[in-house]
Amino acid sequence: MHVHHDQLEVRTRGKGLYEITDQIESKIDKHEVRNGTVTVFVQHTSCSVVIMENADPTARGDLEEFFDRLVPENANYFRHDSEGSDDMPSHIRMVLTHSSETIPIVGGKIQLGTWQGIFLFEHRRAPHRRKIFVTLIGE
Amino acid sequence: MHVHHDQLEVRTRGKGLYEITDQIESKIDKHEVRNGTVTVFVQHTSCSVVIMENADPTARGDLEEFFDRLVPENANYFRHDSEGSDDMPSHIRMVLTHSSETIPIVGGKIQLGTWQGIFLFEHRRAPHRRKIFVTLIGE
Amino acid sequence: MHVHHDQLEVRTRGKGLYEITDQIESKIDKHEVRNGTVTVFVQHTSCSVVIMENADPTARGDLEEFFDRLVPENANYFRHDSEGSDDMPSHIRMVLTHSSETIPIVGGKIQLGTWQGIFLFEHRRAPHRRKIFVTLIGE
Repeated sequence: MHVHHDQLEVRTRGKGLYEITDQIESKIDKHEVRNGTVTVFVQHTSCSVVIMENADPTARGDLEEFFDRLVPENANYFRHDSEGSDDMPSHIRMVLTHSSETIPIVGGKIQLGTWQGIFLFEHRRAPHRRKIFVTLIGE
Repeated sequence: MHVHHDQLEVRTRGKGLYEITDQIESKIDKHEVRNGTVTVFVQHTSCSVVIMENADPTARGDLEEFFDRLVPENANYFRHDSEGSDDMPSHIRMVLTHSSETIPIVGGKIQLGTWQGIFLFEHRRAPHRRKIFVTLIGE
Repeated sequence: MHVHHDQLEVRTRGKGLYEITDQIESKIDKHEVRNGTVTVFVQHTSCSVVIMENADPTARGDLEEFFDRLVPENANYFRHDSEGSDDMPSHIRMVLTHSSETIPIVGGKIQLGTWQGIFLFEHRRAPHRRKIFVTLIGE
Protein backbone atom coordinates (compact mmCIF):
# COMPACT_ATOMS: atom_id res chain seq x y z
CA MET A 1 0.00 0.00 0.00
CA HIS A 2 1.29 3.42 -0.97
CA VAL A 3 0.09 7.00 -1.27
CA HIS A 4 0.80 8.94 -4.46
CA HIS A 5 -0.03 12.64 -4.74
CA ASP A 6 -0.22 14.52 -8.01
CA GLN A 7 -1.76 17.74 -9.30
CA LEU A 8 -3.70 19.02 -12.31
CA GLU A 9 -4.33 22.54 -13.51
CA VAL A 10 -7.57 23.29 -15.35
CA ARG A 11 -7.95 26.59 -17.22
CA THR A 12 -11.62 27.57 -17.14
CA ARG A 13 -13.32 30.06 -19.47
CA GLY A 14 -16.29 30.98 -17.31
CA LYS A 15 -19.13 29.19 -15.56
CA GLY A 16 -19.79 25.57 -16.51
CA LEU A 17 -18.64 21.95 -16.38
CA TYR A 18 -15.18 20.91 -17.62
CA GLU A 19 -14.57 17.17 -17.92
CA ILE A 20 -11.34 15.89 -16.33
CA THR A 21 -11.93 12.12 -16.47
CA ASP A 22 -9.08 11.54 -18.96
CA GLN A 23 -6.58 13.51 -16.88
CA ILE A 24 -7.52 11.52 -13.76
CA GLU A 25 -7.12 8.23 -15.64
CA SER A 26 -3.68 9.39 -16.84
CA LYS A 27 -2.58 9.90 -13.24
CA ILE A 28 -3.68 6.35 -12.35
CA ASP A 29 -1.63 5.00 -15.28
CA LYS A 30 1.39 7.17 -14.45
CA HIS A 31 1.57 6.01 -10.82
CA GLU A 32 0.71 2.39 -11.75
CA VAL A 33 -1.94 1.97 -9.07
CA ARG A 34 -3.73 -1.36 -9.67
CA ASN A 35 -6.03 -1.56 -6.71
CA GLY A 36 -7.26 1.23 -4.42
CA THR A 37 -8.98 4.60 -4.60
CA VAL A 38 -8.45 7.98 -6.19
CA THR A 39 -9.53 11.15 -4.39
CA VAL A 40 -9.95 14.30 -6.50
CA PHE A 41 -9.82 17.49 -4.39
CA VAL A 42 -10.21 21.12 -5.54
CA GLN A 43 -8.21 23.71 -3.61
CA HIS A 44 -10.73 26.53 -4.16
CA THR A 45 -13.94 27.88 -2.64
CA SER A 46 -15.58 29.06 -5.88
CA CYS A 47 -15.52 25.87 -7.96
CA SER A 48 -16.42 22.24 -7.27
CA VAL A 49 -15.68 18.70 -8.38
CA VAL A 50 -18.75 16.68 -9.36
CA ILE A 51 -19.60 13.39 -11.00
CA MET A 52 -22.16 13.97 -13.77
CA GLU A 53 -23.76 12.39 -16.82
CA ASN A 54 -21.11 12.75 -19.54
CA ALA A 55 -22.91 11.64 -22.72
CA ASP A 56 -25.42 14.41 -23.48
CA PRO A 57 -24.26 18.06 -23.36
CA THR A 58 -27.85 19.26 -22.82
CA ALA A 59 -27.83 17.54 -19.40
CA ARG A 60 -24.87 19.69 -18.38
CA GLY A 61 -26.54 22.83 -19.74
CA ASP A 62 -29.73 22.09 -17.80
CA LEU A 63 -27.69 21.50 -14.62
CA GLU A 64 -25.95 24.87 -15.03
CA GLU A 65 -29.30 26.60 -15.61
CA PHE A 66 -30.73 24.94 -12.50
CA PHE A 67 -27.87 26.25 -10.35
CA ASP A 68 -28.14 29.74 -11.84
CA ARG A 69 -31.79 29.80 -10.76
CA LEU A 70 -31.31 28.09 -7.38
CA VAL A 71 -28.52 30.48 -6.31
CA PRO A 72 -29.29 33.80 -8.00
CA GLU A 73 -26.77 36.63 -8.21
CA ASN A 74 -27.63 39.88 -6.47
CA ALA A 75 -29.84 38.39 -3.74
CA ASN A 76 -30.85 41.43 -1.69
CA TYR A 77 -29.42 39.98 1.55
CA PHE A 78 -25.90 39.19 0.23
CA ARG A 79 -23.19 41.21 1.96
CA HIS A 80 -20.12 39.33 0.61
CA ASP A 81 -19.79 40.92 -2.87
CA SER A 82 -16.30 42.43 -2.99
CA GLU A 83 -15.39 40.36 -6.07
CA GLY A 84 -18.68 40.97 -7.89
CA SER A 85 -22.17 39.56 -8.09
CA ASP A 86 -20.93 36.01 -8.88
CA ASP A 87 -18.74 35.95 -5.73
CA MET A 88 -21.17 34.83 -3.00
CA PRO A 89 -23.18 32.51 -5.29
CA SER A 90 -19.93 30.68 -6.14
CA HIS A 91 -19.32 29.80 -2.47
CA ILE A 92 -22.92 28.62 -2.01
CA ARG A 93 -22.78 26.50 -5.18
CA MET A 94 -19.54 24.95 -3.90
CA VAL A 95 -21.09 24.01 -0.54
CA LEU A 96 -24.18 22.56 -2.29
CA THR A 97 -21.95 20.34 -4.47
CA HIS A 98 -18.53 18.89 -3.53
CA SER A 99 -14.90 19.78 -2.86
CA SER A 100 -13.84 16.17 -3.45
CA GLU A 101 -14.89 12.85 -4.94
CA THR A 102 -13.42 9.41 -4.12
CA ILE A 103 -13.65 6.64 -6.74
CA PRO A 104 -12.48 3.00 -6.60
CA ILE A 105 -9.65 1.64 -8.80
CA VAL A 106 -9.63 -2.07 -9.75
CA GLY A 107 -7.08 -3.69 -12.08
CA GLY A 108 -5.66 -0.26 -12.86
CA LYS A 109 -9.05 1.03 -14.08
CA ILE A 110 -11.21 3.70 -12.46
CA GLN A 111 -14.60 2.17 -11.58
CA LEU A 112 -16.92 4.81 -12.97
CA GLY A 113 -20.30 3.69 -14.24
CA THR A 114 -21.14 3.82 -17.95
CA TRP A 115 -22.49 7.38 -17.90
CA GLN A 116 -20.36 8.88 -15.14
CA GLY A 117 -17.71 11.49 -15.86
CA ILE A 118 -15.65 13.59 -13.42
CA PHE A 119 -16.01 17.35 -13.92
CA LEU A 120 -14.64 20.57 -12.56
CA PHE A 121 -17.69 22.80 -11.99
CA GLU A 122 -16.58 26.42 -12.41
CA HIS A 123 -18.82 28.94 -10.63
CA ARG A 124 -17.09 32.22 -11.64
CA ARG A 125 -17.64 34.13 -14.88
CA ALA A 126 -13.99 35.15 -15.40
CA PRO A 127 -11.33 32.67 -16.62
CA HIS A 128 -9.43 30.96 -13.80
CA ARG A 129 -6.55 28.52 -13.34
CA ARG A 130 -7.88 25.83 -11.01
CA LYS A 131 -5.61 23.54 -9.00
CA ILE A 132 -6.81 19.99 -8.46
CA PHE A 133 -5.12 17.58 -6.09
CA VAL A 134 -5.18 13.89 -7.06
CA THR A 135 -4.42 11.39 -4.28
CA LEU A 136 -4.06 7.71 -5.10
CA ILE A 137 -4.09 5.19 -2.25
CA GLY A 138 -3.47 1.59 -3.17
CA GLU A 139 -1.09 -1.09 -4.30
CA MET B 1 -2.95 -2.28 5.24
CA HIS B 2 -4.99 -3.75 2.40
CA VAL B 3 -7.68 -2.75 -0.06
CA HIS B 4 -10.77 -4.92 -0.45
CA HIS B 5 -13.34 -4.24 -3.15
CA ASP B 6 -16.84 -5.69 -3.17
CA GLN B 7 -20.18 -4.93 -4.79
CA LEU B 8 -23.86 -4.77 -3.89
CA GLU B 9 -26.93 -4.70 -6.07
CA VAL B 10 -30.03 -2.88 -4.85
CA ARG B 11 -33.35 -3.38 -6.63
CA THR B 12 -35.35 -0.18 -6.34
CA ARG B 13 -39.11 0.18 -6.82
CA GLY B 14 -39.28 3.88 -7.66
CA LYS B 15 -38.21 7.14 -6.05
CA GLY B 16 -37.19 7.05 -2.41
CA LEU B 17 -34.64 6.00 0.19
CA TYR B 18 -33.53 2.35 0.54
CA GLU B 19 -31.44 1.52 3.61
CA ILE B 20 -28.24 -0.45 2.94
CA THR B 21 -26.50 -0.16 6.34
CA ASP B 22 -26.81 -3.91 7.06
CA GLN B 23 -25.34 -4.88 3.69
CA ILE B 24 -22.37 -2.54 4.22
CA GLU B 25 -21.76 -3.99 7.69
CA SER B 26 -21.84 -7.50 6.19
CA LYS B 27 -19.05 -6.55 3.78
CA ILE B 28 -16.92 -5.29 6.68
CA ASP B 29 -17.45 -8.61 8.50
CA LYS B 30 -16.79 -10.68 5.36
CA HIS B 31 -13.44 -9.00 4.64
CA GLU B 32 -12.50 -8.88 8.33
CA VAL B 33 -11.42 -5.24 8.30
CA ARG B 34 -10.76 -4.18 11.91
CA ASN B 35 -9.45 -0.68 11.46
CA GLY B 36 -9.83 1.66 8.50
CA THR B 37 -12.53 3.17 6.29
CA VAL B 38 -15.33 2.02 4.03
CA THR B 39 -16.21 4.01 0.90
CA VAL B 40 -19.65 3.39 -0.62
CA PHE B 41 -19.82 4.50 -4.28
CA VAL B 42 -22.82 4.38 -6.66
CA GLN B 43 -22.02 3.77 -10.31
CA HIS B 44 -24.99 5.74 -11.65
CA THR B 45 -25.97 9.34 -12.45
CA SER B 46 -29.64 9.11 -11.45
CA CYS B 47 -29.38 7.85 -7.86
CA SER B 48 -27.26 8.84 -4.86
CA VAL B 49 -25.82 7.49 -1.65
CA VAL B 50 -26.69 9.53 1.44
CA ILE B 51 -26.43 9.26 5.20
CA MET B 52 -29.81 10.05 6.77
CA GLU B 53 -31.82 9.78 9.99
CA ASN B 54 -32.88 6.12 10.09
CA ALA B 55 -35.34 5.95 13.00
CA ASP B 56 -38.44 7.81 11.83
CA PRO B 57 -39.88 7.02 8.36
CA THR B 58 -41.64 10.42 8.25
CA ALA B 59 -38.21 12.10 8.14
CA ARG B 60 -37.43 10.21 4.95
CA GLY B 61 -40.83 11.05 3.48
CA ASP B 62 -40.33 14.75 4.20
CA LEU B 63 -36.87 14.62 2.62
CA GLU B 64 -38.29 13.06 -0.55
CA GLU B 65 -41.05 15.71 -0.68
CA PHE B 66 -38.47 18.48 -0.26
CA PHE B 67 -36.44 17.18 -3.22
CA ASP B 68 -39.57 16.79 -5.38
CA ARG B 69 -40.32 20.47 -4.77
CA LEU B 70 -36.72 21.75 -5.03
CA VAL B 71 -36.11 19.99 -8.37
CA PRO B 72 -39.47 19.90 -10.14
CA GLU B 73 -40.13 17.77 -13.19
CA ASN B 74 -41.02 19.55 -16.42
CA ALA B 75 -39.12 22.77 -15.72
CA ASN B 76 -39.73 24.82 -18.86
CA TYR B 77 -35.98 25.21 -19.57
CA PHE B 78 -35.07 21.50 -19.42
CA ARG B 79 -33.79 20.16 -22.75
CA HIS B 80 -32.47 16.75 -21.53
CA ASP B 81 -35.70 14.75 -21.38
CA SER B 82 -35.20 11.75 -23.68
CA GLU B 83 -35.91 9.31 -20.84
CA GLY B 84 -38.93 11.20 -19.51
CA SER B 85 -39.75 14.03 -17.13
CA ASP B 86 -37.87 12.40 -14.22
CA ASP B 87 -34.64 12.16 -16.27
CA MET B 88 -33.04 15.60 -15.79
CA PRO B 89 -34.28 16.05 -12.19
CA SER B 90 -32.53 12.77 -11.32
CA HIS B 91 -29.13 14.10 -12.44
CA ILE B 92 -29.64 17.37 -10.53
CA ARG B 93 -30.71 15.52 -7.37
CA MET B 94 -27.59 13.34 -7.67
CA VAL B 95 -25.28 16.38 -7.92
CA LEU B 96 -27.04 18.05 -4.94
CA THR B 97 -26.48 14.94 -2.81
CA HIS B 98 -23.57 12.44 -3.11
CA SER B 99 -22.07 9.73 -5.29
CA SER B 100 -20.07 8.37 -2.35
CA GLU B 101 -19.76 8.38 1.42
CA THR B 102 -16.68 7.41 3.46
CA ILE B 103 -17.15 6.14 7.03
CA PRO B 104 -14.55 5.07 9.64
CA ILE B 105 -14.23 1.46 10.88
CA VAL B 106 -12.87 0.80 14.41
CA GLY B 107 -12.59 -2.65 16.00
CA GLY B 108 -14.48 -4.14 13.05
CA LYS B 109 -17.47 -1.81 13.59
CA ILE B 110 -18.67 0.97 11.31
CA GLN B 111 -18.59 4.26 13.26
CA LEU B 112 -22.02 5.62 12.40
CA GLY B 113 -23.73 7.82 14.98
CA THR B 114 -26.83 6.59 16.82
CA TRP B 115 -29.31 7.92 14.26
CA GLN B 116 -27.25 7.59 11.07
CA GLY B 117 -28.10 5.06 8.39
CA ILE B 118 -26.66 4.64 4.89
CA PHE B 119 -29.23 4.84 2.10
CA LEU B 120 -29.44 4.51 -1.64
CA PHE B 121 -31.51 7.50 -2.79
CA GLU B 122 -33.35 6.48 -5.98
CA HIS B 123 -34.39 9.40 -8.19
CA ARG B 124 -36.18 7.53 -10.99
CA ARG B 125 -39.80 6.39 -10.93
CA ALA B 126 -39.23 3.05 -12.70
CA PRO B 127 -37.66 0.06 -10.93
CA HIS B 128 -33.87 -0.16 -11.37
CA ARG B 129 -31.03 -2.49 -10.44
CA ARG B 130 -28.41 -0.24 -8.85
CA LYS B 131 -24.74 -1.23 -8.55
CA ILE B 132 -22.89 -0.08 -5.46
CA PHE B 133 -19.16 -0.39 -5.06
CA VAL B 134 -17.86 -0.99 -1.53
CA THR B 135 -14.16 -0.28 -0.94
CA LEU B 136 -12.57 -1.17 2.38
CA ILE B 137 -9.13 0.24 3.20
CA GLY B 138 -7.55 -0.92 6.44
CA GLU B 139 -5.94 -3.63 8.44
CA MET C 1 0.90 2.85 5.70
CA HIS C 2 -1.19 3.07 8.85
CA VAL C 3 -4.66 4.13 9.96
CA HIS C 4 -5.02 6.47 12.92
CA HIS C 5 -8.42 7.31 14.37
CA ASP C 6 -9.10 10.21 16.70
CA GLN C 7 -12.08 12.27 17.84
CA LEU C 8 -13.04 15.88 18.44
CA GLU C 9 -15.93 17.38 20.35
CA VAL C 10 -17.35 20.73 19.23
CA ARG C 11 -19.73 22.62 21.52
CA THR C 12 -22.10 24.62 19.35
CA ARG C 13 -24.20 27.60 20.44
CA GLY C 14 -26.91 27.47 17.79
CA LYS C 15 -27.09 27.50 14.00
CA GLY C 16 -23.97 28.50 12.10
CA LEU C 17 -20.45 27.62 10.99
CA TYR C 18 -17.75 26.71 13.53
CA GLU C 19 -14.20 26.49 12.17
CA ILE C 20 -12.27 23.33 13.12
CA THR C 21 -9.24 23.62 10.80
CA ASP C 22 -6.79 24.11 13.69
CA GLN C 23 -8.09 21.08 15.57
CA ILE C 24 -7.75 18.90 12.46
CA GLU C 25 -4.19 20.13 11.90
CA SER C 26 -3.38 19.28 15.53
CA LYS C 27 -4.49 15.69 14.96
CA ILE C 28 -2.19 15.41 11.92
CA ASP C 29 0.73 16.68 14.03
CA LYS C 30 -0.14 14.41 16.96
CA HIS C 31 -0.20 11.24 14.86
CA GLU C 32 2.81 12.35 12.77
CA VAL C 33 1.24 11.54 9.42
CA ARG C 34 3.53 12.92 6.69
CA ASN C 35 1.83 11.70 3.57
CA GLY C 36 -1.77 10.57 3.08
CA THR C 37 -5.31 11.81 3.66
CA VAL C 38 -7.49 12.97 6.52
CA THR C 39 -11.21 12.18 6.56
CA VAL C 40 -13.41 14.30 8.85
CA PHE C 41 -16.74 12.58 9.63
CA VAL C 42 -19.65 13.91 11.75
CA GLN C 43 -21.63 11.31 13.67
CA HIS C 44 -24.92 13.25 13.55
CA THR C 45 -27.88 13.81 11.23
CA SER C 46 -28.55 17.45 12.11
CA CYS C 47 -25.15 19.03 11.45
CA SER C 48 -22.64 18.83 8.61
CA VAL C 49 -18.96 19.19 7.83
CA VAL C 50 -18.19 21.63 5.00
CA ILE C 51 -15.22 23.34 3.43
CA MET C 52 -15.90 27.08 3.12
CA GLU C 53 -14.26 30.45 2.54
CA ASN C 54 -12.61 31.27 5.87
CA ALA C 55 -11.43 34.87 5.44
CA ASP C 56 -14.59 37.00 5.39
CA PRO C 57 -17.25 36.39 8.08
CA THR C 58 -19.94 37.97 5.85
CA ALA C 59 -19.52 35.04 3.42
CA ARG C 60 -20.47 32.67 6.21
CA GLY C 61 -23.41 34.84 7.24
CA ASP C 62 -24.70 34.93 3.66
CA LEU C 63 -24.36 31.14 3.41
CA GLU C 64 -26.39 30.66 6.59
CA GLU C 65 -29.07 33.05 5.32
CA PHE C 66 -29.23 31.17 2.01
CA PHE C 67 -29.83 27.86 3.79
CA ASP C 68 -32.47 29.39 6.08
CA ARG C 69 -34.37 30.50 2.97
CA LEU C 70 -33.76 27.33 0.91
CA VAL C 71 -34.99 25.02 3.69
CA PRO C 72 -37.62 26.96 5.62
CA GLU C 73 -38.93 25.86 8.99
CA ASN C 74 -42.61 25.00 9.25
CA ALA C 75 -43.10 23.89 5.64
CA ASN C 76 -46.75 22.85 5.55
CA TYR C 77 -45.92 19.31 4.37
CA PHE C 78 -43.39 18.45 7.11
CA ARG C 79 -44.54 15.57 9.34
CA HIS C 80 -41.24 14.94 11.21
CA ASP C 81 -41.37 17.72 13.83
CA SER C 82 -41.18 15.98 17.22
CA GLU C 83 -38.07 17.95 18.20
CA GLY C 84 -39.38 21.30 16.96
CA SER C 85 -39.56 23.34 13.78
CA ASP C 86 -35.78 23.18 13.20
CA ASP C 87 -35.81 19.34 13.33
CA MET C 88 -36.70 18.36 9.75
CA PRO C 89 -34.83 21.30 8.13
CA SER C 90 -31.66 20.15 9.93
CA HIS C 91 -31.81 16.70 8.25
CA ILE C 92 -32.43 18.26 4.82
CA ARG C 93 -29.56 20.74 5.26
CA MET C 94 -27.28 17.83 6.24
CA VAL C 95 -28.19 15.84 3.09
CA LEU C 96 -27.69 18.96 0.90
CA THR C 97 -24.19 19.45 2.35
CA HIS C 98 -21.82 16.72 3.65
CA SER C 99 -21.28 14.20 6.43
CA SER C 100 -17.57 13.97 5.61
CA GLU C 101 -14.71 15.66 3.80
CA THR C 102 -11.41 14.03 2.71
CA ILE C 103 -8.33 16.24 2.30
CA PRO C 104 -4.76 15.33 1.20
CA ILE C 105 -1.75 15.55 3.55
CA VAL C 106 1.72 16.19 2.07
CA GLY C 107 4.89 16.67 4.14
CA GLY C 108 2.80 16.68 7.29
CA LYS C 109 0.68 19.61 6.06
CA ILE C 110 -3.00 19.56 5.15
CA GLN C 111 -3.38 20.62 1.49
CA LEU C 112 -6.16 23.16 1.82
CA GLY C 113 -6.21 26.04 -0.65
CA THR C 114 -5.48 29.60 0.50
CA TRP C 115 -9.10 30.45 1.34
CA GLN C 116 -10.37 27.03 2.42
CA GLY C 117 -11.28 26.26 6.01
CA ILE C 118 -12.99 23.19 7.49
CA PHE C 119 -16.20 23.96 9.40
CA LEU C 120 -18.81 22.18 11.44
CA PHE C 121 -22.16 23.48 10.12
CA GLU C 122 -24.67 23.35 12.99
CA HIS C 123 -28.31 23.21 11.88
CA ARG C 124 -30.06 23.22 15.28
CA ARG C 125 -30.90 26.31 17.34
CA ALA C 126 -30.11 24.77 20.75
CA PRO C 127 -26.52 24.21 21.96
CA HIS C 128 -25.14 20.75 21.15
CA ARG C 129 -22.01 18.69 21.77
CA ARG C 130 -21.00 17.38 18.36
CA LYS C 131 -18.74 14.36 17.90
CA ILE C 132 -16.37 14.42 14.94
CA PHE C 133 -14.35 11.43 13.85
CA VAL C 134 -10.91 12.12 12.34
CA THR C 135 -9.34 9.30 10.34
CA LEU C 136 -5.78 9.62 9.07
CA ILE C 137 -4.53 7.16 6.44
CA GLY C 138 -0.91 7.45 5.45
CA GLU C 139 2.72 7.01 6.29
